[in-house]
Amino acid sequence: MTGKKPAIPKGTRDFGPKVMARRNYIFNVIRNIFEKYGFQPLETPAMENLSVLTGKYGDEGDQLLFKVLNSGDFMRKTEVADYEKGYKHLTAKIADKGLRYDLTVPFARYVVMNRNDITFPFKRFQIQPVWRADRPQKARYREFYQCDADVVGSNSLLCEAENLAMITEVFEKLGISEYEIRLNHRKILKGITEMIGAPGMEMAFSMAIDKLDKIGASKVKEELLDHGFDEQSIKNLEPFFDLSNAERGDNREIVGSLLAGSETARYGLQELDTILEIFGKLISHKKVQLDITLARGLSYYTGAIFEVRVLNSSVKSSVSGGGRYDDLTGVFGLEGVSGVGFSFGVDRMYDVMEELELFPEETVEAPSLMITNFDEDAMGHALHLLKTLRESGVRAELYPDTVKLKKQLTYANKKNIPFVLMVGSKEIEELKFSLKNMKTGEQQNLPIQEVIEILKKSM
Amino acid sequence: MTGKKPAIPKGTRDFGPKVMARRNYIFNVIRNIFEKYGFQPLETPAMENLSVLTGKYGDEGDQLLFKVLNSGDFMRKTEVADYEKGYKHLTAKIADKGLRYDLTVPFARYVVMNRNDITFPFKRFQIQPVWRADRPQKARYREFYQCDADVVGSNSLLCEAENLAMITEVFEKLGISEYEIRLNHRKILKGITEMIGAPGMEMAFSMAIDKLDKIGASKVKEELLDHGFDEQSIKNLEPFFDLSNAERGDNREIVGSLLAGSETARYGLQELDTILEIFGKLISHKKVQLDITLARGLSYYTGAIFEVRVLNSSVKSSVSGGGRYDDLTGVFGLEGVSGVGFSFGVDRMYDVMEELELFPEETVEAPSLMITNFDEDAMGHALHLLKTLRESGVRAELYPDTVKLKKQLTYANKKNIPFVLMVGSKEIEELKFSLKNMKTGEQQNLPIQEVIEILKKSM
Repeated sequence: MTGKKPAIPKGTRDFGPKVMARRNYIFNVIRNIFEKYGFQPLETPAMENLSVLTGKYGDEGDQLLFKVLNSGDFMRKTEVADYEKGYKHLTAKIADKGLRYDLTVPFARYVVMNRNDITFPFKRFQIQPVWRADRPQKARYREFYQCDADVVGSNSLLCEAENLAMITEVFEKLGISEYEIRLNHRKILKGITEMIGAPGMEMAFSMAIDKLDKIGASKVKEELLDHGFDEQSIKNLEPFFDLSNAERGDNREIVGSLLAGSETARYGLQELDTILEIFGKLISHKKVQLDITLARGLSYYTGAIFEVRVLNSSVKSSVSGGGRYDDLTGVFGLEGVSGVGFSFGVDRMYDVMEELELFPEETVEAPSLMITNFDEDAMGHALHLLKTLRESGVRAELYPDTVKLKKQLTYANKKNIPFVLMVGSKEIEELKFSLKNMKTGEQQNLPIQEVIEILKKSM
Repeated sequence: MTGKKPAIPKGTRDFGPKVMARRNYIFNVIRNIFEKYGFQPLETPAMENLSVLTGKYGDEGDQLLFKVLNSGDFMRKTEVADYEKGYKHLTAKIADKGLRYDLTVPFARYVVMNRNDITFPFKRFQIQPVWRADRPQKARYREFYQCDADVVGSNSLLCEAENLAMITEVFEKLGISEYEIRLNHRKILKGITEMIGAPGMEMAFSMAIDKLDKIGASKVKEELLDHGFDEQSIKNLEPFFDLSNAERGDNREIVGSLLAGSETARYGLQELDTILEIFGKLISHKKVQLDITLARGLSYYTGAIFEVRVLNSSVKSSVSGGGRYDDLTGVFGLEGVSGVGFSFGVDRMYDVMEELELFPEETVEAPSLMITNFDEDAMGHALHLLKTLRESGVRAELYPDTVKLKKQLTYANKKNIPFVLMVGSKEIEELKFSLKNMKTGEQQNLPIQEVIEILKKSM
């Protein structure tokens, strides 16, 4: 191994100081708004039992789970026969844990395991990485963070409205102003299948219609045909396709008349009306749009669903989304717990903010000041100054080695340290130290108390 | 799977709101002090290539690595033969990634991969979980957080002194006052082996002497015999054992005379003197003790080493420790980069703080106020108040469902929400709302602006 250049696993990333500072900036904005709305933090382990994870994300999801080998001497001669029976059989023997694929299933597992200790409605947020064995490609990673907030144990539509309000507050706070929340309801999708004469085919319909933006109407029709929709049903869909092509704007009236024929759809629309009414009371400027083609992939949604896109960015996929699910914990034996939740796609939001240059200049938590290190004689006094500065609340560091001044200044510069304090024998004698502003190049000779005052003003 | 009660993998934990808040309290104290000293954040992926991880932690460590199965259809018929050759061979074929075992090796990997972009000396901190396939037992987990700070690329003893200063600041800030930093130097250990007539046997000596506290002098002697030390060498050790039994206190003079016979040991002691001198200039109250029996297990240390124990707690193992290493990155082909680093054992510190009741009362970030939900008529006005409160910076939530008041108050109580605002039809008519202090039970009728003032004062 020695001497070999090390590499990082495909699809994973290191986050150095600058990127970390910017990511933390986004996380902090999100965390503060989650907490402002009464959500509380939860963390679950990276590994979950495979019995918890498998069967929750569809066949494709199961294949994307990272499985962790059981530790110890788990493979015995007798298992060779098993191995010959095939890979799946063997995998079950040698791996019973996997890395979490999202934050929703671990959350459901947590709720079920702690049902007796939790005060419902339970409002939790969770900001942790997830892992998916996707083929690595641009802007798709095998390890990425999710930021989820969910309420379980309440049927109130206030929960949906507050999701929209939190999304709005986060985007406004981050300075992302050109965005759109698209809103739909699973019951509207269900109602449409009833109206066009394809009742019970809601799932296939949702999956196909969800791709309308990407693949266009004719490809969606093909897919519906493939899934067993008849020609007449598809013809009945025409007005809905037309609607999706119509100008963006207040489409409530058209949607209402289109859906008038289905009680199920009307119920869904009514819920959306209520959600929007509450939302309007919470937030003054709302950027939300009914979109009856929005389906969202995940099958567990049962009520309102929503998704957010940024309009003035090259990032075209959604940067946030969520919805209501009626039975998330049912799969673990706890029935009848309704919930609403949503997620921020932090990696995509990061890309948007970088593209639109929305990061504040000073996100990096660099020290405010660096003291130069001239020689051993000066170091004693430099340490004294360092202590004084730190005790006054100034983030300061002393360059550790007595190397050339130029090298020390380069260090300060690269680390974005705004001030450098030169401490040599002359300065120590006069008790006036040369403070250099690294941006302007300006240099002043000052006693330490004045240095502290300038630093405190600049913080 | 459906209906089966879910479980969490052995040796792992969920962190609910209360524990999260307390853990974050510790993390924030540590992070702020790391940043105050000019350290900057780094995060590395959970998975590393096994070629990066293996061979770095000894045989025992290698066995404790969690290995991640390669994704996809990686096992082919032709590999059955490999399998029959044995487990090790097969593992190498089916798993080429593992979960990180500590933060030091990933850090070394990062430094080597980014050597051309990093400005040295590089001061980074890293707060992330690590995974070890240890047998689960009390207070030993398979997933736990490490908090590391390292400087690489500087030989200055200022780095060691600042480690001790950061440790001191963190413990003082957390309120842990009865602790002791024990300090030693690898060159002192080396010098002792030379002096007792067992040169070159420093590693075996270090491993044995490190257990003195746990197993006592006679068992340590046995172990040394087993490792090939002769009777005379062990006899020569007697004065050192005596020293370790001596009263704690200023033992600099005795240590100095004991080590006088070895140039190597004298060099080590001189470095410790310098470190303590610098440390004394940075921090007024230092709690540090020379301990020539301290060895620390990890073999990569080459200079000063130190460890922290809390004296008035049932947690007997060290809660922090570190030291200087001369060639951490050499294993990845980058030679001659010296560094100093240390780590906080956050799980143990948590246990200490809980035992000594050192957590502030209000670590949980609960909302400051909950508005009750009486009925749909009242809800419109409640939403208006909610908006006003939040815009004034008050963390507030509206109970989502119109259930019995008692249930709503129980919710506020369990969530540690200090104030409840009752908003019924009478209150709305009078525009005076009943503010209940959940601790004192006191209740006042107030206009919303006065409610905000009280809340802001309490924050």
